[in-house]
Amino acid sequence: MEEIEVRELKKVKLENPVMIEGLPGVGNVGKLVAEHLIQELNAEKIVEIYSWHFPPQVLVNNDGTVRLCKNEVFAWKSKTKQQDLLIVSGDEQSVTNEGHYFITETLLDLAQKYKVSRIFTLGGYGIGQLVEKQSVLGAANEIRLVEEMKKYGVEFREEEPGGSIVGASGLLLGLGRLRGIPAMCLLGLTSGYLVDPKSAQAVLKVLCQALNLEIGMQALKDRAEEMEKVIERLKEMEKAQIPRHREEELGYIR
Amino acid sequence: MEEIEVRELKKVKLENPVMIEGLPGVGNVGKLVAEHLIQELNAEKIVEIYSWHFPPQVLVNNDGTVRLCKNEVFAWKSKTKQQDLLIVSGDEQSVTNEGHYFITETLLDLAQKYKVSRIFTLGGYGIGQLVEKQSVLGAANEIRLVEEMKKYGVEFREEEPGGSIVGASGLLLGLGRLRGIPAMCLLGLTSGYLVDPKSAQAVLKVLCQALNLEIGMQALKDRAEEMEKVIERLKEMEKAQIPRHREEELGYIR
Amino acid sequence: MEEIEVRELKKVKLENPVMIEGLPGVGNVGKLVAEHLIQELNAEKIVEIYSWHFPPQVLVNNDGTVRLCKNEVFAWKSKTKQQDLLIVSGDEQSVTNEGHYFITETLLDLAQKYKVSRIFTLGGYGIGQLVEKQSVLGAANEIRLVEEMKKYGVEFREEEPGGSIVGASGLLLGLGRLRGIPAMCLLGLTSGYLVDPKSAQAVLKVLCQALNLEIGMQALKDRAEEMEKVIERLKEMEKAQIPRHREEELGYIR
Amino acid sequence: MEEIEVRELKKVKLENPVMIEGLPGVGNVGKLVAEHLIQELNAEKIVEIYSWHFPPQVLVNNDGTVRLCKNEVFAWKSKTKQQDLLIVSGDEQSVTNEGHYFITETLLDLAQKYKVSRIFTLGGYGIGQLVEKQSVLGAANEIRLVEEMKKYGVEFREEEPGGSIVGASGLLLGLGRLRGIPAMCLLGLTSGYLVDPKSAQAVLKVLCQALNLEIGMQALKDRAEEMEKVIERLKEMEKAQIPRHREEELGYIR
Repeated sequence: MEEIEVRELKKVKLENPVMIEGLPGVGNVGKLVAEHLIQELNAEKIVEIYSWHFPPQVLVNNDGTVRLCKNEVFAWKSKTKQQDLLIVSGDEQSVTNEGHYFITETLLDLAQKYKVSRIFTLGGYGIGQLVEKQSVLGAANEIRLVEEMKKYGVEFREEEPGGSIVGASGLLLGLGRLRGIPAMCLLGLTSGYLVDPKSAQAVLKVLCQALNLEIGMQALKDRAEEMEKVIERLKEMEKAQIPRHREEELGYIR
Repeated sequence: MEEIEVRELKKVKLENPVMIEGLPGVGNVGKLVAEHLIQELNAEKIVEIYSWHFPPQVLVNNDGTVRLCKNEVFAWKSKTKQQDLLIVSGDEQSVTNEGHYFITETLLDLAQKYKVSRIFTLGGYGIGQLVEKQSVLGAANEIRLVEEMKKYGVEFREEEPGGSIVGASGLLLGLGRLRGIPAMCLLGLTSGYLVDPKSAQAVLKVLCQALNLEIGMQALKDRAEEMEKVIERLKEMEKAQIPRHREEELGYIR
Repeated sequence: MEEIEVRELKKVKLENPVMIEGLPGVGNVGKLVAEHLIQELNAEKIVEIYSWHFPPQVLVNNDGTVRLCKNEVFAWKSKTKQQDLLIVSGDEQSVTNEGHYFITETLLDLAQKYKVSRIFTLGGYGIGQLVEKQSVLGAANEIRLVEEMKKYGVEFREEEPGGSIVGASGLLLGLGRLRGIPAMCLLGLTSGYLVDPKSAQAVLKVLCQALNLEIGMQALKDRAEEMEKVIERLKEMEKAQIPRHREEELGYIR
Repeated sequence: MEEIEVRELKKVKLENPVMIEGLPGVGNVGKLVAEHLIQELNAEKIVEIYSWHFPPQVLVNNDGTVRLCKNEVFAWKSKTKQQDLLIVSGDEQSVTNEGHYFITETLLDLAQKYKVSRIFTLGGYGIGQLVEKQSVLGAANEIRLVEEMKKYGVEFREEEPGGSIVGASGLLLGLGRLRGIPAMCLLGLTSGYLVDPKSAQAVLKVLCQALNLEIGMQALKDRAEEMEKVIERLKEMEKAQIPRHREEELGYIR
């Protein structure tokens, strides 16, 4: 295996494509949105990316088979004259410092190969407590994109998203800028303790508006309801003063 | 020394060999089985693998001499018309992320050189408490192997082995799949706190069935009995309410 | 992107330049001084340095745009016959061990290209408690520079700065010595818990004396006053015996 | 700077040299012995080794000048017909995994260049409590060396030195064996909490016997007496039941 191995499974021709990245991260918000899109649009996998910068492990599927950690790129061809999509998701992000840079460069190579007009990166912004009011924070690598995103209800707060955006969601903007590719990041507010399909819904809404797409939300809603029940139980436990260590029991529930 | 240095000690001709990997890991289950096989079969060492991805240390033998950390491959030629064996064991696994990938690729190179028909990787699956009922969980890189292993009593649980298999036992399946080598993993349930020869016995039984091999178990049984005594003492201490920190005294007893 | 990518934005001709390095570090003392100099002198950015040894993230500007972590070099041409300046600052230092060496070598390449006569590196020396009396400790890569710096009130204590100077501020001296470039380090005493503009003032004063420069201090004074208020509040809280964990609330206030 | 930069300061011709390695480690025992030898024998520095695998910092000398972290090799020519010496000491060991291997290989290259007949590596063996009775444990890369060392009172215990010898002291034996260079390790029993000149004396005694050397011990004795006073104070504090955390106050006193 090479340091980064790009396996092209299928050649497709895309018109005016937009790249959407949703890799694992805080609250798994980005990945939830990307996977939801892939399923709802029935997007087709065209690329697998393997790398020794991913964790040295395999993941076990429900049928007992395994898969190597990888990133994947899916293509979707719009039936109307809208833009086509390249959706990036995957099992893991790099576990080494330089791997983050290399894998992002690989994604940008693909973006350039398919001549994407812009990139949306998706993630969560952890605030350390349960979110009362959903909202989506933004960042972009061109000031005109900031202005555009405000129209879709994206918030820009001077002190947030707290200085830095880590991993592919950030580097696609930073390294994309060096290549002249417009890119913006949508971060759903989330506690940071739980997988957050509700935050994913909020991000998806903004994305659909920006892309003028219509996507069914039911699957995310169902998952959000399940999580609501988990949260209710946690709150009751808290009220009942059942002694517990936050790390232990609230942990990171998937 | 090269990044990975393969020292071939002896050339052997093997018929229809199967590779069995048992490197150090949870409960040391895999290594116990591999070393037991090597001893019982009187297998012959044919390869030593050195690497700067192993810990920067030497191990001290009982006679005061030292050895570099390494992995080793042993060969065993069956006297009947059964398959021959290539058994992989060693002192340590890689301590770097990429080293896990490189060393697994090296093992797969050997597997291909000797034209192995399949690979069994062995390990433990830590459940964080003493195991009441021994069982062996499985995973494989082809669905037909999953079906085959069920016949030998291997369990496949939808939620377990908990998402991922770390290290050579996992990567041999994942990277093996990319090369088209059938591979399966046997994980003995174990507490995760103690070296577990009892779990090793359970794994060995499944392996012997799958390979149609007969192997004496006495050495593992003896070691398991010793460990039982240790566990009994720990349980009594717990009953007697002797205050202790789990990490300190239960620790990781070898 | 290359391992270290030096983007030359502008070619300048400098006379007898001195290099001043102030990258992030203890109390952010060095960076505060370097940024103050850049602003007061209206120095011009001539070089950007990107590297995958910086953290894999982007930083969010107040206007919602982002920037990659980088180091930067600014040039200032003196109007009198004094020496010109090359001022090094940036968002981050390397997060890998070898990256510290590589980036320092890159800075030394620039120093040699511009034929700098000497290098001043700036930083903080954390003493673990609030500083009662400001002072500036020194170190140098030639004994004659030690003597010279004593004239500017720089202190040399046998037991301090406690053995080692970590990062670019140290390596520019050590690696500079191998290239024969005179270099000295100014370390302002600081608590180590807070960004310390007061310590930065002390360092700047010494630097101005050594370079025979006149620089307005007001901006640093204003910021120091703000910090004084923060410290006063912390002291009151301490007196009032409000229970708190030092890490949590005193933390590292920026 | 190259990954490992060997600066040869002086060419010497040595007769039948023995290499002695004493780099920083547990109780600093090895380094204390090596530095004591260098001083007592007035050995001459012939090689400096720089590497980006050392910590990214400079060390400050008492006169205010700095030095890069490095390893050094000193030569001593015996006036009698005894063997000459190559003594290895230094500021630090590698901080990366592979660096330990590379630097050891560099030392072995030197050993071969000077045709050393054998290598002694020196270190401490931390037992986690104050040492009641000094003793020196051994390990070697040939069984005949084990036998030889027993004659000098070196102890070989089946369960100790506890499995592994980390760093250059271990790897010189392990990698040396691959090159056919006889090498043995002397480990002085030490608490592991304090620099231990008393343990260093015990190691030096064995070494002198093995090399048929006579070395004054006064400097080590003086330093050991100073440490005794520190230990006495610590014991009194313990008796007086002054509450303290071991890590905090016993720490690692130099």
